[in-house]
Amino acid sequence: MRTSELTTPALLVDATRLEGNLRTMNDALPGTRLRPHVKAHKCTALATRQAAAGHTGFTCATVREVEGMVRAGLGEDLLLANEVVDATRLGALARTGARITVAVDSDATIDAAARAGVPEVVIDVNVGLPRCGCPPAEAGRFADRARSAGLAVRGVMGYEGHIVGLEDRATRADMLEVSMGQLSLAAGDVGGEVISAGGTGTYDLNPWATEIQAGSYALMDTAYGKLGLPFTQALTILSTVISVSPGWAVADCGLKALGMDHGNPSIEGAEVWFCSDEHVIFAPGSPLRVGDRIGVFPAHLDPTVAYHESLHLVDGDEVVERWDVDLRGW
Amino acid sequence: MRTSELTTPALLVDATRLEGNLRTMNDALPGTRLRPHVKAHKCTALATRQAAAGHTGFTCATVREVEGMVRAGLGEDLLLANEVVDATRLGALARTGARITVAVDSDATIDAAARAGVPEVVIDVNVGLPRCGCPPAEAGRFADRARSAGLAVRGVMGYEGHIVGLEDRATRADMLEVSMGQLSLAAGDVGGEVISAGGTGTYDLNPWATEIQAGSYALMDTAYGKLGLPFTQALTILSTVISVSPGWAVADCGLKALGMDHGNPSIEGAEVWFCSDEHVIFAPGSPLRVGDRIGVFPAHLDPTVAYHESLHLVDGDEVVERWDVDLRGW
Repeated sequence: MRTSELTTPALLVDATRLEGNLRTMNDALPGTRLRPHVKAHKCTALATRQAAAGHTGFTCATVREVEGMVRAGLGEDLLLANEVVDATRLGALARTGARITVAVDSDATIDAAARAGVPEVVIDVNVGLPRCGCPPAEAGRFADRARSAGLAVRGVMGYEGHIVGLEDRATRADMLEVSMGQLSLAAGDVGGEVISAGGTGTYDLNPWATEIQAGSYALMDTAYGKLGLPFTQALTILSTVISVSPGWAVADCGLKALGMDHGNPSIEGAEVWFCSDEHVIFAPGSPLRVGDRIGVFPAHLDPTVAYHESLHLVDGDEVVERWDVDLRGW
Repeated sequence: MRTSELTTPALLVDATRLEGNLRTMNDALPGTRLRPHVKAHKCTALATRQAAAGHTGFTCATVREVEGMVRAGLGEDLLLANEVVDATRLGALARTGARITVAVDSDATIDAAARAGVPEVVIDVNVGLPRCGCPPAEAGRFADRARSAGLAVRGVMGYEGHIVGLEDRATRADMLEVSMGQLSLAAGDVGGEVISAGGTGTYDLNPWATEIQAGSYALMDTAYGKLGLPFTQALTILSTVISVSPGWAVADCGLKALGMDHGNPSIEGAEVWFCSDEHVIFAPGSPLRVGDRIGVFPAHLDPTVAYHESLHLVDGDEVVERWDVDLRGW
């Protein structure tokens, strides 16, 4: 099948660029030094390639992601790096033989894991992002409580989400040292072997964590593209020009095909004006005709992919494989 | 089933508020004076209620929406208010007996409709929003070309998307008069009986259009909520508090459960700080505990619903019906 036969908007993954990104990351963080985050692509076919490269432990953000990974035979070591109040479905997965670990940061989430029969936890530590995670000084207490409840405590996690997207590398490095200092202190109190942290923006700056939870590196987006990382934009949204007016053109890639929290998408050689539900409006750099196909680059990968049913792996204009985005929903 | 049994995040539709919104709109624009836009809710079960109220013609934004409406038996009069370069699927639907009309604004889109066997078109006219639509003065020429190609031209459409969201009613009214003046001129050149325009923000200000394409009025969002319209917020995202820290709390309703192009969602009595992929972070107005459930109100309805698999119609805490969001994708 050729890309020209695809209904648009359609997510295209450049096979060569994807392979390059996977290889670059594998060189830097081989094997289980990387725990790829599946929230970025929500696709077990892509996760299978990451596992084949040796990254056999994965990070998930939702119970549905954990369930889908187990169903796809990728349940060797799954960390739900998020808190859940009802862990029933996770407990059920653990009883099928999958290795399930869940993040906890409160008595309530510890009790939920214990009640549901999730055998292993990590203590989620706040390392500066005001989101989940307990204060570093309380991590030891929560570890004690978890062990008292019969849970195995594998260690700690702490996500420096306030740092991973900063454009200046030196600033990222400086701030990361502070965050990881807090996490290391908590790790000392908690015990265990796991210190899980990080993302694509800090993947090569972190000697403190035992494993890095990067996900965006495989497909990339324009926000991470500004950081000068050695990963290339592998994801494009193939779109069709449906209307041309003097001064602007319209393609069929709108709000419902794009995560918009990081702002407008980009189109090579063009200036994007705005997006509507099903339209991107832009001033093209050179004349376009109705029916032309263009590539749109999303500002934020994760919520973009979550709108789509499939990823199309392409080699030039040839669609090599069609992959379900099979980890959507909750 | 009780709402407490739902997996979160979950879309809740308050049955009483929905009925109130449908009734208010039906009083203002009975029967086919309203052509409800299904892009707002992407749900044939909800469209069935609109049809039962007498609104038997519908507006769609994607081919998939048109297909789903036909499949649900709601194909009495479907307008795809958008341009398509490949109308093959629309032609196939028309041959099943559904009434299919598509917007055209160029030679290429007219030819596509004719080639595919879509029998009827409206000429899409630019009424001030720089998006699709031909200049008003060219509408007549396109109508001639469409008729020469064997198409029936039902009239014109023109969407004043730059006006519907303006907060000041007098400004909306003034600007609408200009836009509809342009559309009326084009309608004179084009002929036919249809002048299709409008949205929730201008639904009661438009004596020029023969039919109004409003969609958001049924469920509403916080952006339209600022306009002082007689429609109430019927949609809530039920969410679970998963983490509480001194000064803020975190619930499981993030970027992937919300359209973010209109900004952050709202939580009653709380100040929303930011959203991550699976989290909304906020300063609560009163103390919350892990496990508490809260309601989150989206800033923009359409791209919010498009992330979800279902709408839950609720009467208080009782889930009365579960409706598939069955018109997603392309």
